[in-house]
Amino acid sequence: MRADQIAEEYPVVSMDTDALEAARLLAEHRLPGILVTGTDGCPEAVLPASQVVRFIVPKYVQDDPSLAGVLDERMADRIAEKLRGKKVRDVVPEHLAKVPAAKSDDTIVEVAAMMARLRSPLIAVMKARELVGVITASQLLAAALRN
Amino acid sequence: MRADQIAEEYPVVSMDTDALEAARLLAEHRLPGILVTGTDGCPEAVLPASQVVRFIVPKYVQDDPSLAGVLDERMADRIAEKLRGKKVRDVVPEHLAKVPAAKSDDTIVEVAAMMARLRSPLIAVMKARELVGVITASQLLAAALRN
Repeated sequence: MRADQIAEEYPVVSMDTDALEAARLLAEHRLPGILVTGTDGCPEAVLPASQVVRFIVPKYVQDDPSLAGVLDERMADRIAEKLRGKKVRDVVPEHLAKVPAAKSDDTIVEVAAMMARLRSPLIAVMKARELVGVITASQLLAAALRN
Repeated sequence: MRADQIAEEYPVVSMDTDALEAARLLAEHRLPGILVTGTDGCPEAVLPASQVVRFIVPKYVQDDPSLAGVLDERMADRIAEKLRGKKVRDVVPEHLAKVPAAKSDDTIVEVAAMMARLRSPLIAVMKARELVGVITASQLLAAALRN
């Protein structure tokens, strides 16, 4: 089984997409992460849902988690506020700022090796200059176990 | 909004579940990770789908990803073989071997802080000694943006 047989259609954002819009897509489609394309429309980076969660936790709570308990409920209302005005490029983690795409004829093991090495929740699949789709870790397991 | 209002029902495995069975659940339900309970039935660890992907990549391919390309298709057939006979405890990553559960009345920010600090794809929610459900990163974003 080849990468283009596993890849599924998936929402895509660009580095200039509003971070709040990216968070909405992650939330709405229950995605582990979202593919980020560069100015040329080619896959460039990956934004994991876990990274957005990290971003919405105030710095002083990250430093001292016991403070989270004393935050009142209005704090949650301000989460959207924290993302508004930010771009995807402002929240993409450093280790996922450059995530190469797999080729359409790569094997499951090649995609798995890439995902493991890059610690990415998903890998894009390209055929020539066209985006075929995206493979997540659980999709990859599904394909591997179907064999 | 409180943790027990966000938590959703979710499959659960134990440390002694067959690793192949856990991989099947991750694949079938397209989960970013699965909750692992201890002998007392309480949440103990988390097994991310990405960790299972890492596990199925042969060690020599992890060391030299260029070797993945020369693996023939039969390699993928052997992925299930690699997991068979292993237990969940054999594949749980060290940093997620002890993941405390959130309390049912924790706020979104408390759960987010916990998820960020533990680098876990999900957090279990307990009410007294009962498992209420599980919150993933994307579910947490969905709840936060609904506010």
